[in-house]
Amino acid sequence: MQSLELDKPWEQLSSLIDTDNPQQILDFLNSINPADTALAVSRLTVAEQNRLFTLLRPEDAADVIEDISDTQAADIIDDLAPQQAAAILEELDSDHVADLLGELDEDDANAIIEQMATEEAEEARLFLNYAPNTAGGLMVSEYLDYHHDQKVQDVLDDLQANREEYADYDVQYVYVTNDENHLMGVLRMRDLLFPKRTAKLGKLMISNPYRVSADASLDDLRNFFEEHNLFGVPVVDAESRLLGVVMPEDVEEANQQQSTQQFLGLSGIVGGEEFRSMPLLARSGRRLSWLSLNIVLNIIAASVISLYQDTLSAAITLAVFLPMVSDMSGCSGNQAVAVSMRELSLGLVRPKELMRVLTKEASLGVINGLALGILLGLVAYLWKGSPFLGLVVGAALAVNTIVAVSLGGLIPLVLKQAKLDPALVSSPLLTTVTDMCGFFFVLSFASLVIDKL
Amino acid sequence: MQSLELDKPWEQLSSLIDTDNPQQILDFLNSINPADTALAVSRLTVAEQNRLFTLLRPEDAADVIEDISDTQAADIIDDLAPQQAAAILEELDSDHVADLLGELDEDDANAIIEQMATEEAEEARLFLNYAPNTAGGLMVSEYLDYHHDQKVQDVLDDLQANREEYADYDVQYVYVTNDENHLMGVLRMRDLLFPKRTAKLGKLMISNPYRVSADASLDDLRNFFEEHNLFGVPVVDAESRLLGVVMPEDVEEANQQQSTQQFLGLSGIVGGEEFRSMPLLARSGRRLSWLSLNIVLNIIAASVISLYQDTLSAAITLAVFLPMVSDMSGCSGNQAVAVSMRELSLGLVRPKELMRVLTKEASLGVINGLALGILLGLVAYLWKGSPFLGLVVGAALAVNTIVAVSLGGLIPLVLKQAKLDPALVSSPLLTTVTDMCGFFFVLSFASLVIDKL
Repeated sequence: MQSLELDKPWEQLSSLIDTDNPQQILDFLNSINPADTALAVSRLTVAEQNRLFTLLRPEDAADVIEDISDTQAADIIDDLAPQQAAAILEELDSDHVADLLGELDEDDANAIIEQMATEEAEEARLFLNYAPNTAGGLMVSEYLDYHHDQKVQDVLDDLQANREEYADYDVQYVYVTNDENHLMGVLRMRDLLFPKRTAKLGKLMISNPYRVSADASLDDLRNFFEEHNLFGVPVVDAESRLLGVVMPEDVEEANQQQSTQQFLGLSGIVGGEEFRSMPLLARSGRRLSWLSLNIVLNIIAASVISLYQDTLSAAITLAVFLPMVSDMSGCSGNQAVAVSMRELSLGLVRPKELMRVLTKEASLGVINGLALGILLGLVAYLWKGSPFLGLVVGAALAVNTIVAVSLGGLIPLVLKQAKLDPALVSSPLLTTVTDMCGFFFVLSFASLVIDKL
Repeated sequence: MQSLELDKPWEQLSSLIDTDNPQQILDFLNSINPADTALAVSRLTVAEQNRLFTLLRPEDAADVIEDISDTQAADIIDDLAPQQAAAILEELDSDHVADLLGELDEDDANAIIEQMATEEAEEARLFLNYAPNTAGGLMVSEYLDYHHDQKVQDVLDDLQANREEYADYDVQYVYVTNDENHLMGVLRMRDLLFPKRTAKLGKLMISNPYRVSADASLDDLRNFFEEHNLFGVPVVDAESRLLGVVMPEDVEEANQQQSTQQFLGLSGIVGGEEFRSMPLLARSGRRLSWLSLNIVLNIIAASVISLYQDTLSAAITLAVFLPMVSDMSGCSGNQAVAVSMRELSLGLVRPKELMRVLTKEASLGVINGLALGILLGLVAYLWKGSPFLGLVVGAALAVNTIVAVSLGGLIPLVLKQAKLDPALVSSPLLTTVTDMCGFFFVLSFASLVIDKL
């Protein structure tokens, strides 16, 4: 079971691709773990990737696709001939196909769908209609359903006859439908162990089972699986017709992906995705688009200093403390942002509960503001020998900390109410305001006692 | 199925607790979804929480415990009488018990364990020995195992006889062991559907099944479930004795929890956990401990300005641009930190590949540095009318961006190599260095052309 961690798996893979021997490549890929496969494939050149996926049989290529991230897989699929891409996609789960096609241009996706077998193509078109991170986007079409008139023996015969195909199915339930494909009931596999083999499914099934509609959100699905410890939930349309099944692990995975994108979004990487194997200019562009917005916010903040240039030249030591006050209160505020985002995602606070967050954060701001203000005030006094400087700097930090944590706590709630993504905007917005206020408090307090400084 | 979103579920819960009617409380909790339960319980006072968990039957209390986070649940458990706590814990999965007890003081945990039934107490002691986020810490003891001499009929009889107990079990496999409890093989539930009922398990089982050792890490387990699409993996000790079973959804959940803690860690919230329902001073302390370290880093950075005070008073306009240069390169650097952390966690880069990251980031740094430098240089020139000022500020930002993204890319790898948590330390470390360098570049470049400014 334990696969060896190889030093540079991509070098071996690359030289195996040169030998044009698909079996050797396959043996090598089977001998390393999925993480190393992902690593090795990501380090190949585009030409080598193309060669690799052309050499492998579609079912083996599909296994490799399953090991790598959707963004990378879509890039590779995009570069293949539509016919080859179609053959590989036919081997994947229906929701995975939809995820990959969803990352391509519409034209490219359609070119591939046209090359797929009729049934799979229809399914792909259907699945592409659902938004990602909804029940429709996350469901699979690989499930077992039988008519309510069928008998236990019919199910066993079918299971036996299609052993190989069903072996890949994750589903632990048998769904029971009527002539119009309406969901009638559900049976667990183990429920088939005991009854007589002539019993009809309609008699055995648990009627009116749990279900979700195709537009149920990721949060709905997480709530559902938290509430019900099940191995899957059937997805139905408005007329209660069975469309597919959502598995809890797919919900968890989508959720994990969303958190990661939020995390990268917080650092201002637009689109939430960057791999160092992407072309340099694409990487640069994704980062720059946010940085150039940031420059505008910075100019706004810095203009406060510009206004108080006279105060500053009268007491140049203040310049040492300007960035300290703004940095430190920015940090305090970002802590409050993080706590709010966390509580929002856990459902422990609601977007409209502004007053609750404000009181909680303002009271914390008073304590931490006093503590940090006294600390920095003492530092300023001892370092530069001026008690008034200490007073100005300490008071500014104290007041600005209260502003920063209160705002930091509120911003994610306000953005959420305004249907904006708090992950991408909270931090730069907060930093701009705390910078402005920090500069303003230091310089305006200083101008009050300018002749003592 | 669709539960109503109530306006303030905690107010209703609180008034129901006052009426002392456990059935009404239970009906109410069953009528709202788990997220609202968590919200409502988190908003109760400590006395109300205590009253709630005393009123409910242990099995109902255990259901509520399952809906709330471990940190909050441990707090509540800690406040109950050990006997009551023990009765509730006996109703939970074995790994959940270990998680909760692991959050308590050793003395408190032992007091509770002493009140538990012998079998559960022994299990709890055993599970507490395993580190969290290892196979031992994540496994459950609720699984089905039979001796290899037993027959299919024996299994069916046992399943029938213990229907109720097993209904809560998540396990989809039947494990086969020998006299010494060594893991011999595995059977899927559906494998029991077809063979003769007199067949011995030893003949039917898949021999030598996949297994993990109790000290397998979370990463090992994620890799395992990525590689093998299974509903669980047996955990064995060094002598191959069956200890428990790890489920894929528990691995995903642990993984999700780890990411969240990293995210809060990045914002400098020590311990990675804060809820606004915690006492004010505890919250303040968790945030302050990191902020007071931050003040030291800030002093180091600011001392560079102090050294160049003369240059600064000769050209006070520079003070406007000092925070801009350091802020903007800090942002660029943090983007590189985020990408490195992401690639590390996906296994797309290895901690020792410093040169790879350096070349990738430095080349991006040159492009983005030039772009941002020219942009800010132009802003400075147009705003303040001095071409030399534009040159100084633009060049400083360009150079500092290269430093920031290179360092930002490298720091997480270096910290990982040094076995430190990159989430907690990367960002403050980077910011300090980019602040220092930013101030230094602006002021030293300025001192070269000081008579032109």
